[in-house]
Amino acid sequence: MNAPLRIEAGEVIDWIVFDRPEAANALSTPLLDALSEALVRLRDSGAPVIGIRGAGKGFSAGVDLSEYNAAATPTADAARLRRNVERWLDIWRHPKPVIVAVHGFCMGIAAQLPSFADITLVAEDARIGEPGIPLGGGFIAPTWVSQVGAKRAKELALIPGNHVTGAEAAAWGWANAAVPADRLVACAEALAERMALIPAPVLAMKKLSINRAMEAQGFLASVNAIAESDAILHLEPSVLALRQDIASLGLKAVLARFAGPRSQQILTQSGRKTIDG
Amino acid sequence: MNAPLRIEAGEVIDWIVFDRPEAANALSTPLLDALSEALVRLRDSGAPVIGIRGAGKGFSAGVDLSEYNAAATPTADAARLRRNVERWLDIWRHPKPVIVAVHGFCMGIAAQLPSFADITLVAEDARIGEPGIPLGGGFIAPTWVSQVGAKRAKELALIPGNHVTGAEAAAWGWANAAVPADRLVACAEALAERMALIPAPVLAMKKLSINRAMEAQGFLASVNAIAESDAILHLEPSVLALRQDIASLGLKAVLARFAGPRSQQILTQSGRKTIDG
Amino acid sequence: MNAPLRIEAGEVIDWIVFDRPEAANALSTPLLDALSEALVRLRDSGAPVIGIRGAGKGFSAGVDLSEYNAAATPTADAARLRRNVERWLDIWRHPKPVIVAVHGFCMGIAAQLPSFADITLVAEDARIGEPGIPLGGGFIAPTWVSQVGAKRAKELALIPGNHVTGAEAAAWGWANAAVPADRLVACAEALAERMALIPAPVLAMKKLSINRAMEAQGFLASVNAIAESDAILHLEPSVLALRQDIASLGLKAVLARFAGPRSQQILTQSGRKTIDG
Amino acid sequence: MNAPLRIEAGEVIDWIVFDRPEAANALSTPLLDALSEALVRLRDSGAPVIGIRGAGKGFSAGVDLSEYNAAATPTADAARLRRNVERWLDIWRHPKPVIVAVHGFCMGIAAQLPSFADITLVAEDARIGEPGIPLGGGFIAPTWVSQVGAKRAKELALIPGNHVTGAEAAAWGWANAAVPADRLVACAEALAERMALIPAPVLAMKKLSINRAMEAQGFLASVNAIAESDAILHLEPSVLALRQDIASLGLKAVLARFAGPRSQQILTQSGRKTIDG
Amino acid sequence: MNAPLRIEAGEVIDWIVFDRPEAANALSTPLLDALSEALVRLRDSGAPVIGIRGAGKGFSAGVDLSEYNAAATPTADAARLRRNVERWLDIWRHPKPVIVAVHGFCMGIAAQLPSFADITLVAEDARIGEPGIPLGGGFIAPTWVSQVGAKRAKELALIPGNHVTGAEAAAWGWANAAVPADRLVACAEALAERMALIPAPVLAMKKLSINRAMEAQGFLASVNAIAESDAILHLEPSVLALRQDIASLGLKAVLARFAGPRSQQILTQSGRKTIDG
Amino acid sequence: MNAPLRIEAGEVIDWIVFDRPEAANALSTPLLDALSEALVRLRDSGAPVIGIRGAGKGFSAGVDLSEYNAAATPTADAARLRRNVERWLDIWRHPKPVIVAVHGFCMGIAAQLPSFADITLVAEDARIGEPGIPLGGGFIAPTWVSQVGAKRAKELALIPGNHVTGAEAAAWGWANAAVPADRLVACAEALAERMALIPAPVLAMKKLSINRAMEAQGFLASVNAIAESDAILHLEPSVLALRQDIASLGLKAVLARFAGPRSQQILTQSGRKTIDG
Repeated sequence: MNAPLRIEAGEVIDWIVFDRPEAANALSTPLLDALSEALVRLRDSGAPVIGIRGAGKGFSAGVDLSEYNAAATPTADAARLRRNVERWLDIWRHPKPVIVAVHGFCMGIAAQLPSFADITLVAEDARIGEPGIPLGGGFIAPTWVSQVGAKRAKELALIPGNHVTGAEAAAWGWANAAVPADRLVACAEALAERMALIPAPVLAMKKLSINRAMEAQGFLASVNAIAESDAILHLEPSVLALRQDIASLGLKAVLARFAGPRSQQILTQSGRKTIDG
Repeated sequence: MNAPLRIEAGEVIDWIVFDRPEAANALSTPLLDALSEALVRLRDSGAPVIGIRGAGKGFSAGVDLSEYNAAATPTADAARLRRNVERWLDIWRHPKPVIVAVHGFCMGIAAQLPSFADITLVAEDARIGEPGIPLGGGFIAPTWVSQVGAKRAKELALIPGNHVTGAEAAAWGWANAAVPADRLVACAEALAERMALIPAPVLAMKKLSINRAMEAQGFLASVNAIAESDAILHLEPSVLALRQDIASLGLKAVLARFAGPRSQQILTQSGRKTIDG
Repeated sequence: MNAPLRIEAGEVIDWIVFDRPEAANALSTPLLDALSEALVRLRDSGAPVIGIRGAGKGFSAGVDLSEYNAAATPTADAARLRRNVERWLDIWRHPKPVIVAVHGFCMGIAAQLPSFADITLVAEDARIGEPGIPLGGGFIAPTWVSQVGAKRAKELALIPGNHVTGAEAAAWGWANAAVPADRLVACAEALAERMALIPAPVLAMKKLSINRAMEAQGFLASVNAIAESDAILHLEPSVLALRQDIASLGLKAVLARFAGPRSQQILTQSGRKTIDG
Repeated sequence: MNAPLRIEAGEVIDWIVFDRPEAANALSTPLLDALSEALVRLRDSGAPVIGIRGAGKGFSAGVDLSEYNAAATPTADAARLRRNVERWLDIWRHPKPVIVAVHGFCMGIAAQLPSFADITLVAEDARIGEPGIPLGGGFIAPTWVSQVGAKRAKELALIPGNHVTGAEAAAWGWANAAVPADRLVACAEALAERMALIPAPVLAMKKLSINRAMEAQGFLASVNAIAESDAILHLEPSVLALRQDIASLGLKAVLARFAGPRSQQILTQSGRKTIDG
Repeated sequence: MNAPLRIEAGEVIDWIVFDRPEAANALSTPLLDALSEALVRLRDSGAPVIGIRGAGKGFSAGVDLSEYNAAATPTADAARLRRNVERWLDIWRHPKPVIVAVHGFCMGIAAQLPSFADITLVAEDARIGEPGIPLGGGFIAPTWVSQVGAKRAKELALIPGNHVTGAEAAAWGWANAAVPADRLVACAEALAERMALIPAPVLAMKKLSINRAMEAQGFLASVNAIAESDAILHLEPSVLALRQDIASLGLKAVLARFAGPRSQQILTQSGRKTIDG
Repeated sequence: MNAPLRIEAGEVIDWIVFDRPEAANALSTPLLDALSEALVRLRDSGAPVIGIRGAGKGFSAGVDLSEYNAAATPTADAARLRRNVERWLDIWRHPKPVIVAVHGFCMGIAAQLPSFADITLVAEDARIGEPGIPLGGGFIAPTWVSQVGAKRAKELALIPGNHVTGAEAAAWGWANAAVPADRLVACAEALAERMALIPAPVLAMKKLSINRAMEAQGFLASVNAIAESDAILHLEPSVLALRQDIASLGLKAVLARFAGPRSQQILTQSGRKTIDG
């Protein structure tokens, strides 16, 4: 098996690249373990800035369905979900600035990660949001609240398969900026080049100090209880029935059941421009 | 007397319709009691989504002036105001998603309610804001802080009769979106139709989990002390004088004293476009 | 020596004017002391609204470099920085609404002050942001988090000399509005004129009540630990080396080392419009 | 069926008496519904103080095992548990002071209730603590944290069937005082007699104001996520196995498996006095 | 008029002595102003430790009744009460350790002050608690919550004229220790002598850092809304009636109406020892 | 070099034993690294309960003086201190209950660790507290606040070399219980034996749920800013002078300068019993 992740070492930015394009960069345990290891390794060596992006057509489609709910027991399932959040907190607590560059698709738990990074750049045509089938819930959108507020987090969460474009995500404050897809990496690197001029201990303290302001406003507590919500839903009969249907009818058939316009399409279907249009 | 509120039962959304158009849907105690009862009744029956809107020319003009400050004592007054917030928290804690559709006028305590709902849609030409005469204070704008921030909450609160249009409210993040008035209900129903595809227990957990993120960030505490501020102002000589003037000179005369441009007009009077223009 | 600050008393607004244009209105201790005294004096007398602006070409360039890090010991340095925040909190706690009108440059600690004021107006072409040389850190950007979120606070903080225009600051929610520079004072006064119609005790309670909502959401705690971060960096070898270089090579040479495009230029260099363009 | 609860109306205190002595006052849904109704009824009528106690040999043995985990689905189970906390919050939010008088046994969810009351009196020989078999968890002890701290909450929670005597509970600050069992009701009534001298609106505000101090310190958030923890454990294989064993081997046999000294016995077994001895 | 307060300058401790023994050291505005001034003056000069005590038979009887509710309007009354809390916060924020030595009586707002000091010593026979007539409420006990918990704060607050002895206050954690009255000052000075060995900047940082831990746990927010509660009660008819009765019947007659045993007497009246026996 | 730490594997408890008795179990980096590794290794293997104790005459004397302030720069020093707290948080977040058994001396950072453990047992004659020379500050006592309150945390912190006995620590709630030194390990094991009867997933959830209640009340934020305080003091001239004096005059001479009675001795020197006596 190939490594699920590769490092592109640079002078001002080390890129951690999710490298399972054949699996839509699904966040398998090996990939997540490799991410955690890379973050540890880059603490004391490497370039002054870290970037995270995906290889191929998109950032990541989220959880690896082949591992989904594989945990043997409900508490093991909840522990697995909490472990996920702990991995994102390693980004939050990392001494170096972390820039996430999102292109293509960024769904489910892959859309959690940027909430814990320092700078998020998105391709204008990226798609960011919920999985197409509601096989769980209460795990992802709460991490968006401090970026986009409760109303927009709910708009994204309460509609099956809902998502926003990169341009919308930037207008909402979920991302710092939306740029043309072909300029995404260049923009991240240009920012990193500027950041690299600041002495590393100053960069680290600036990041830490802003994170603390967020923590004083309840950020850590707000990402705390999300694992249990999802673990409970994984055992809900209606969700188990969906899983059964996927097994018997196929993913496509079940996806079709939930297909439909996303909220921003509904809200602008009168021909008016979208907010970022 | 007619019922102050009617329910329009639907398959995907049950509309709670404020139905006192002759009184600008003023939130009288009977109307509020009917709202509370409807919310209880819809916990375990009815459509998967709840909508709230107003009949006639607007959503609601706010407090019923005939009841205003009718409470016999200052603590009874404060208790009445706290009771109001408790009613809104019944929306917050309701297991179903609640969509508020605001058109026309939405003033005073009517502009509190949406802070506790899940999705807020506004007609582009709606007017949202403070009552025209400062007969109290410190009660409404604090509930907006987590949506629009302190600076904009203050901009709305510190100018008599200040308000924003629906389009501005959406640009500020107070509402999810502003749509043409004649598409308001249709948009809410289209969102509800999509939401209804998600199993009810999953919907409930998704809402709960995002609310918890807000609560971890102080939401409940932030709406906690607002009743006392208002109750004190109700006894302030300058406010009592205004009430006297209304009684002796008439509402119109006192309203005229506070009339003037709203903040967004002042800030764009140089002919430049408004932020949402 | 001339007074570093003058009061322009008005009927609806008393302007506190930073008046060291020859020193770019640098916030020297005498100037800050005069500000503190003015705020005390205006508690019980004067116009119902307070304005703060700068004389000359800009609002303020921030710390007075001649005093920078003059404190004899690290704890004295931290105490000096905490004292600064206490001065801003006098604005936060003041019974009157405080409007800050920012034009030209507003750098470093001068860009902290508006986080504690009630209404912030900016000239469209103002420049707001970080000092050009990273001689400290973790002190300013954390105070912006509740206005612009962590991602944008980091975007401003992690790039040397980064800043936004007034128009961008308004689009981000850092300011209430951006107006043409020649209309800045007139706009503030027009808002003040409207505010002045509200009885003073009502104004005071409205401000207090919104501030409390912010405090319930952690605002005070979030501005609490910033002094120590900066004081530590003031002793960091890399920062001491910069100070040495400034002494030996001159400010210009060191500034040049950090010169480069600001983040919004980088993110829009593909020729697309800026977010506020 | 007899009413599960009776009211003993008095001049200074109305007693709500759990009245299922034959079932160890297990908190069945009818009993809890009757409690909720009584609290509503006593808002605007009755004596100025409310008391809660149990009839027969003890306060309450906790959950009604015949209803235990009867909820059809995990989310319904979690909702049932949250509903429980909401009932306790009706005590917390009640305008009248609520005195709980605990004698005999007070186990499981019955030991949650006093965390939400104003004054807790205990009989010196009462037993307060965890159920004898760990059929769930994470639901009760977290509500004790603000009274006894995390260390003692854990001491109670992490040992099967652990409990403290009334005397120990008072020494720990869980209760206001421990008194001889035969003086429990008289003491409560003597306190109520004194309280009744204070005008009701003053009493209500004093209670509210102290509760707010607790809420500002995170009380509501701290009782927020406890339902999900328990609901997950109800589905845990090890817990399901215990339930199976109870069904097949009988309650006694399974209880015996967990029998053993309580923590305070272990920690004082060297013959030294207990902390309250 | 004599100065209401005197400073006893020492080498290791400067005593601020409330010096209105003829008025039971009632906290008149001149006395409070003198306290505020003394705290400012002692920031940069004087001994390394500050002590606060009362001259004569007790610490202080609380508010100066001759000034009580003298404020012309409800908002002025609330502002006066908030001003009081601000004075206590000057103790909280003072760079030097502040030891309060309480003897004799310490009632009403005088019992707030120690919540903001660093070390509280009490004479064993001191009396600490509520005023004898409930002329307000919700102002004092909330400041005790972080020291004694909600249950004991309520026990003190909900009974007219309730109080604890110094010995009980120490057992509850309200004070660091109770000592014989004749050793109170000597004990404070012995502690100060030891503290004075620590370099002043280290002392200041140690105090600041512990205060921050309290603030992170909501201390400032918890003392925030107390003024409004009291101001509302000052206008409550039942309270106004009491004031009328005092005017017409005399203080003694009204005091007698509320006289009775304090809670600790009630709870130990069976002849058993008090907790601090 | 011998391993600084050994594991005593048991059936119900695995003991992590600090094993540098010749160095008073000073917490050197190798020892702390071994602790971190042990905690990771025991996540998924070993006994259901973890114990931590010290070999030889005491638990630990705290920081390893040979490493003290060895960090090359102030930010590296702060990072080292934060790293320490992160290690303790690994105990906090560990899925297994952790019992700390403290005997003999437990000074400085060694007295932080128990704040993050689940159960703390102390030998009656243990000594817990501050280092004998104030070479830093603001780092240790803040972690005690949620156990003993601010007043007692300050009493310990503001007096050089101050400490409490194990018996006092238990009476203050810092520890669950004080037992005779020769029964310390047996008591811990007896508790562990009882805990081991609860299924591991239930134990883990019970611990997690109580920790969450603490986190909702600000625990994580309260341990957040302590590193910077200490790092600043490490650079304070008065502290550097002390270090100089130690180097030139010897540790003993400097220790003697700060020697004196501890606070509990001062407060009970009148011959009365100590609170735990």
